[in-house]
Amino acid sequence: MLNEALRYVEQNRERFLEEYKEFLRIPSVSTDEAHRPDIQRAAAWVADQLQQIGMERVEIYPTPRHPIVYGEWLKAGSARPTVLIYGHYDVQPADPLEEWQSPPFEPTIRGENIYARGASDMKGQVMLTLKALEALAQTGGLPIHVKVLIEGEEEIGSPSLEAFLRSHQEMLRCDFSLNPDAGMLGADLPTITYGLRGLAYFELRVYGPAQDLHSGVYGGAVHNPAQALVELLAGMHDAKGRVTLPGFYDAVRPLSAEERAELARLPLDEAFFLQQTGAPALYGEAGYTVVERVGARPTLDINGLKAGFINSGAKTVLPAMALAKISMRLVPDQDPQEVHQQLRRYLEERAPATIRWELIAMHGSRPTISRRDTPWVRALSQAMEAVYGRKPYFRREGGSIPVVAQLQDILGVESVITGFGLPDDNLHAPNEKQNLPNWYRGIETILRFLTVLGEANV
Amino acid sequence: MLNEALRYVEQNRERFLEEYKEFLRIPSVSTDEAHRPDIQRAAAWVADQLQQIGMERVEIYPTPRHPIVYGEWLKAGSARPTVLIYGHYDVQPADPLEEWQSPPFEPTIRGENIYARGASDMKGQVMLTLKALEALAQTGGLPIHVKVLIEGEEEIGSPSLEAFLRSHQEMLRCDFSLNPDAGMLGADLPTITYGLRGLAYFELRVYGPAQDLHSGVYGGAVHNPAQALVELLAGMHDAKGRVTLPGFYDAVRPLSAEERAELARLPLDEAFFLQQTGAPALYGEAGYTVVERVGARPTLDINGLKAGFINSGAKTVLPAMALAKISMRLVPDQDPQEVHQQLRRYLEERAPATIRWELIAMHGSRPTISRRDTPWVRALSQAMEAVYGRKPYFRREGGSIPVVAQLQDILGVESVITGFGLPDDNLHAPNEKQNLPNWYRGIETILRFLTVLGEANV
Repeated sequence: MLNEALRYVEQNRERFLEEYKEFLRIPSVSTDEAHRPDIQRAAAWVADQLQQIGMERVEIYPTPRHPIVYGEWLKAGSARPTVLIYGHYDVQPADPLEEWQSPPFEPTIRGENIYARGASDMKGQVMLTLKALEALAQTGGLPIHVKVLIEGEEEIGSPSLEAFLRSHQEMLRCDFSLNPDAGMLGADLPTITYGLRGLAYFELRVYGPAQDLHSGVYGGAVHNPAQALVELLAGMHDAKGRVTLPGFYDAVRPLSAEERAELARLPLDEAFFLQQTGAPALYGEAGYTVVERVGARPTLDINGLKAGFINSGAKTVLPAMALAKISMRLVPDQDPQEVHQQLRRYLEERAPATIRWELIAMHGSRPTISRRDTPWVRALSQAMEAVYGRKPYFRREGGSIPVVAQLQDILGVESVITGFGLPDDNLHAPNEKQNLPNWYRGIETILRFLTVLGEANV
Repeated sequence: MLNEALRYVEQNRERFLEEYKEFLRIPSVSTDEAHRPDIQRAAAWVADQLQQIGMERVEIYPTPRHPIVYGEWLKAGSARPTVLIYGHYDVQPADPLEEWQSPPFEPTIRGENIYARGASDMKGQVMLTLKALEALAQTGGLPIHVKVLIEGEEEIGSPSLEAFLRSHQEMLRCDFSLNPDAGMLGADLPTITYGLRGLAYFELRVYGPAQDLHSGVYGGAVHNPAQALVELLAGMHDAKGRVTLPGFYDAVRPLSAEERAELARLPLDEAFFLQQTGAPALYGEAGYTVVERVGARPTLDINGLKAGFINSGAKTVLPAMALAKISMRLVPDQDPQEVHQQLRRYLEERAPATIRWELIAMHGSRPTISRRDTPWVRALSQAMEAVYGRKPYFRREGGSIPVVAQLQDILGVESVITGFGLPDDNLHAPNEKQNLPNWYRGIETILRFLTVLGEANV
């Protein structure tokens, strides 16, 4: 049965790729209201896929914002476990458009890679998982019970997901969740992620004069809101790269000596991060390695800055308003609500009376750590070893996947977190890509993973 | 002759206003290459005006960028002085467009004001001056020799003007210059400006990673260029609101006790600036009054900030680049070239090795102080007293008019600097306006000014 399924994949390589491209052509940008019809189209397309690969009870559930697509196949027999596969069909915005070498929604193959927004995050991961299901379903049936939930709001913080999980607990009941929304350490380094950072995202607006002023006529009279903003932002880190929000580190679980030793074994040295980022030098919180800083320590980043005149040329304006988008990556046991309060307290303490400010909480998610001694993790390890010829690495990843914490809270299940994207896939950036050989290895890995689970006595 | 000219103005009020509106409808934004045809159109329109009002030898001189319009009338007789009237037909960009109550290039009258980009700065001032010339020229001839130079690059720092002045010294020879590009302290407060701040305008770019990164995957590994930028910008002022660039105040001429006393007599208290700006509080260099700070002390302002994701919504990007537009207003005897070097030195000393930076000098102009005991200043005072019923105020203004220093250097003449715009005209901002009663009083003031000069024995 395994061999049949593998042969099926081999025979359908080209068609799989064409369908993957079809999916990538839909500009399902969830944060942009202008793309609402594309989001609808992507949801319908995913539902079609689920039908075509052999899933049953396929449904599109509307939410207050973007629909959730669900399908299931529950004919594996009573002794078999049930997996809930999570994915998302929405993508990040594509801007800045001018930096793309090929159009973001016209998938283009260059060398071993396919380039498109969502190629890696995570339409590529969704598609390889669905194609593994298809190969098994079309060659004798799935070895375990499978439920598939593909949402359309991950890139905006999954605002509708929690309510959906709560109101569909019976339907979604499972033994564990498979979440292929993480990545690999490198092309030959299969990876299982056991820790994820949480997120707290804000927009900070600083207001000064009632409207833009001439900087000659009024420069020297008022506090320029852009200046007040940069002063507030600059004060959010100290000289050691630590975040200065009051109480920010209070809930951070210290890293044990054992975990630090384990993380130090990952093949991710400073040279690797320098090469991946292209930065002139590395930077971060003093006292921690870069692997610790990106996975196991919280950070605060400015994601956007806007004030005054930003076109080419010169305009001597003293702007009425300045804006920053700020987000914190959180680690256990930080909480996005508490961090919101810490930021608010920082602003209350530090903002001068010469300006007014407004803080808008955009979205947040809790950080998580998963167990590594479950049958599901063991089965995935075994499948990875078969495909890649080596045991997987276990890592804590810097990104945030809100659903992991929600599934833990609401359904009481842990997630097996993996993925077949690479560190240089340009997630959330221009020229996002997916390595294609690895994409096919991903299909085989998921296919073997489910097969092992079907054979095991779990 | 004066009475005839005044009657002419009275009889042509409506037509003058219609022509002013025509001028305002041309979107002659000099900083934007897309508006190059509009700039050409504005130059041609001004040349037509000069012809129509009776000027001779009207010519449009091309420059490397935007043309200079020139006209003259030299038939006042050998005993009479010659004035070189300066103006500019270009305007600032109109953005942010959405904040305009009526379209920026569709002049709209609401109450006593006419709203449009350039209504005050300075198409309004150019038009009232030309209409004064017209009234005199059409009712017996101009009382003194008049040369008119209207450039199209003032809002981008007059890059072609200096070379033009140098290569046309004979043509432009004059006894003094009239520059109506300044403003009034208030609607009933005629004002002569004797000091102008200079300008040094820069774009600072900070580069970090080779391209935008996912802030989850890489947050904690590299110095976010937006963070590095805000740290550099925040450090440019100390806690007392002083600019920290090395040597920034070294060349600043201290204010004499006498001048401070004089400036203190201006009807410009803190309540006035609070009301004009709408800011929650005033702010600036410790130890100086707000009038001193905006006129007689140098400042540094952030004119623009741009980094990362600035649309609505959230994007967890760690941007590859962050940009600021920064400008300094300078006072005697600061020099824009020296300030450029001071900024460069600041960056060399303070920029961390974790980022790269680039500094682009956009344009600069020297600050000036003019004498107040000249026949031209006396004549203008007399004209103002006749129109407004009070002697003018003498002030130092915060804005920059590059041509004033250039005329001093190249032609050896001082400028009489005035204007009929008001502090709340929203120069360089949305909803720019000109008070119309004051615009008509401006026509009468210039008309009387030239008449006094024609009668005086100067």
